[in-house]
Amino acid sequence: MTCKILFSLFVALWLGSMGFAQTSIVKEDFKPSEVNQPGKLFPQVNSEGRVRVQISAPEAKKVQLDIGGVKYDLVKDDKGVWTGESAPQDEGFHYYQLNIDGASVPDPGTRYFYGAGRWGSGIEIPATDQDFYATKDVPHGLVSENIYFSKLTNSFRRCFVYTPAEYELNPQKRYPVLYLQHGSFEDETGWAAQGKAGLILDNLIAEKKAVPMIIVMDNGYAYKPQTGENADRPVSVFEEVMIGEIIPMIDSKFRTIADREHRAIAGLSMGANQTMRIAMNNLDKFASYGGFSGTSNYPSSDEINVETFLNGAFKNGAALNKQFKVFWLGLGTKEPNPFPGSVGAFRKMMDKQGIKYVYYESPGTAHEWLTWRRSLYQYAQLLFK
Amino acid sequence: MTCKILFSLFVALWLGSMGFAQTSIVKEDFKPSEVNQPGKLFPQVNSEGRVRVQISAPEAKKVQLDIGGVKYDLVKDDKGVWTGESAPQDEGFHYYQLNIDGASVPDPGTRYFYGAGRWGSGIEIPATDQDFYATKDVPHGLVSENIYFSKLTNSFRRCFVYTPAEYELNPQKRYPVLYLQHGSFEDETGWAAQGKAGLILDNLIAEKKAVPMIIVMDNGYAYKPQTGENADRPVSVFEEVMIGEIIPMIDSKFRTIADREHRAIAGLSMGANQTMRIAMNNLDKFASYGGFSGTSNYPSSDEINVETFLNGAFKNGAALNKQFKVFWLGLGTKEPNPFPGSVGAFRKMMDKQGIKYVYYESPGTAHEWLTWRRSLYQYAQLLFK
Repeated sequence: MTCKILFSLFVALWLGSMGFAQTSIVKEDFKPSEVNQPGKLFPQVNSEGRVRVQISAPEAKKVQLDIGGVKYDLVKDDKGVWTGESAPQDEGFHYYQLNIDGASVPDPGTRYFYGAGRWGSGIEIPATDQDFYATKDVPHGLVSENIYFSKLTNSFRRCFVYTPAEYELNPQKRYPVLYLQHGSFEDETGWAAQGKAGLILDNLIAEKKAVPMIIVMDNGYAYKPQTGENADRPVSVFEEVMIGEIIPMIDSKFRTIADREHRAIAGLSMGANQTMRIAMNNLDKFASYGGFSGTSNYPSSDEINVETFLNGAFKNGAALNKQFKVFWLGLGTKEPNPFPGSVGAFRKMMDKQGIKYVYYESPGTAHEWLTWRRSLYQYAQLLFK
Repeated sequence: MTCKILFSLFVALWLGSMGFAQTSIVKEDFKPSEVNQPGKLFPQVNSEGRVRVQISAPEAKKVQLDIGGVKYDLVKDDKGVWTGESAPQDEGFHYYQLNIDGASVPDPGTRYFYGAGRWGSGIEIPATDQDFYATKDVPHGLVSENIYFSKLTNSFRRCFVYTPAEYELNPQKRYPVLYLQHGSFEDETGWAAQGKAGLILDNLIAEKKAVPMIIVMDNGYAYKPQTGENADRPVSVFEEVMIGEIIPMIDSKFRTIADREHRAIAGLSMGANQTMRIAMNNLDKFASYGGFSGTSNYPSSDEINVETFLNGAFKNGAALNKQFKVFWLGLGTKEPNPFPGSVGAFRKMMDKQGIKYVYYESPGTAHEWLTWRRSLYQYAQLLFK
């Protein structure tokens, strides 16, 4: 046993005695996370992908970092400041929270993102391929907040609209549109914030890898108000809102090319499921579909009965091959059940029907945003060409 | 003593024995705040303007609501849920935090806003005049996130740009621009989020009370990188960034009318101070100024020496009366020192110099966002006419 190994063991034992939950040595090359609030030194990330948090809570008995489904105990110093870190995380973006004496709260060090049904903390583990969504000195498009009244839901709704940098400079030119949806317990802010949709398209367009396009990011939760004894059973009308309200509003408010060949739809997880149904029910409206980590047979991994699935929408493979310009599916290699089985069953059906599609695997990522950033990066390059 | 008074006393004593910090009876007509996260029942506001918060923290020893500079103790029930409320707050928007065993954290019930140098919780006490910033079924403009590279600061910066609803429908028409700045410890998100600038203009334009205009909301913190022994003494270059980078970028990216008569500038608090200096140093660029709760003699309440103040910029009153289309000042009636004295000293100087200006007082509000929403509402109606 060399001195180095002995020293390592000693450090590991010492860290263990300090209450750190690590079983291996923590690399001390932590840097503040790029999604920290201005001037905040914590949370930090090291080259192993560990997340270190720190918070002052002098009177607290127990403080934990809650990330990736695991809770890590922090350790208090003599000034009442708690510090601790997680096991290495996958590269990319993760939601997390702190737990202070039983209260689940956002970390006051980070900016906040909507996911897991709440506005909460986020952390970015630098990815090997992060260049494709980096903020660069290229022409930047706009991401616009657009408020509209929806008669179907009797409510004000909001979408974010990406317009490419050249949009403002070419007041006569019209553009194709991608409708891009978030996943469950997320909202219309996700794709532009943690999804970095605007930056991904800015970079793709600057490199001439993608056609300048408009992207519309709306909210996938839309319910028709019910009255009387059905008041507590709201009915989802997202498809009706998309077809009857969002698309006409976008076509009237923005300079779109308003035909099916210049209109694509995609979504992640729940959004993949929703948008596949919408695409198949409205082939006169869309010529391209992208399913990021999801398909409409979710959560089933069973063989798909093509006669009954989505009312037989996939029965005529030859016709679909003519109708779809792009049919795209993506999945992370580390996605948990039921996604691999469910998407796998869908692909089997597609293969059996002889329907052409592109299949992409995001290496080393789970059911999280780096999978979807990469999916958008891949998918957008194929559109409207 | 009537029965009613006796009963009131009894209730007050009983509430006191429960640990509630109230000295008067709390009206039980609380409703969830309009800035809550989707589905969250707390915080709530009652008709007295009290803020009631609730959080589960079973292991905590002490939980407080920290609002308006006062900390209110919450009370724990047998399930570990803490509840409590504040004294009545002024109508309008307030920042607040929770304190859990010494940790200052955002309330997981609210959406988050940047102010007081952090992303934190906000609460809205419904205002008697809230209709002017309500979300209505009128044509809505866009609020766009615009990223740009700043050579002067060697950094990527961001502004939000409001374009009126008709902007997209009139691709040949050009528009006047208002540059609108936030206050200290706030950022470029403030005016569109808690300031409701977009909704205020949507409503004003729909009622034909304001001219359709572009509003640019940038970040008032801009520093020139220093090297060597000056590295820790950054030099503010916000004026240089505004004149040399932001305005040319906006004039090239948006359909502006790029002359001084169609360019206004305004700010709140620190932003009022900054933008007054910028306006007076660049009378060839701006014909209108708005100072919301601030002036450049801040924090002094002393008589202004017109020979030296801003390098004698206010010496020639007659010339300024010709140069300014609108010179506007506003203040809340409940603003703390030094604002009344400081703005008062500025007004005395203006009166002595015979310089015309509009002065507005926001009734019943302090150095907070309802003062500034009202200021924008008043100021915008006078611009570009």
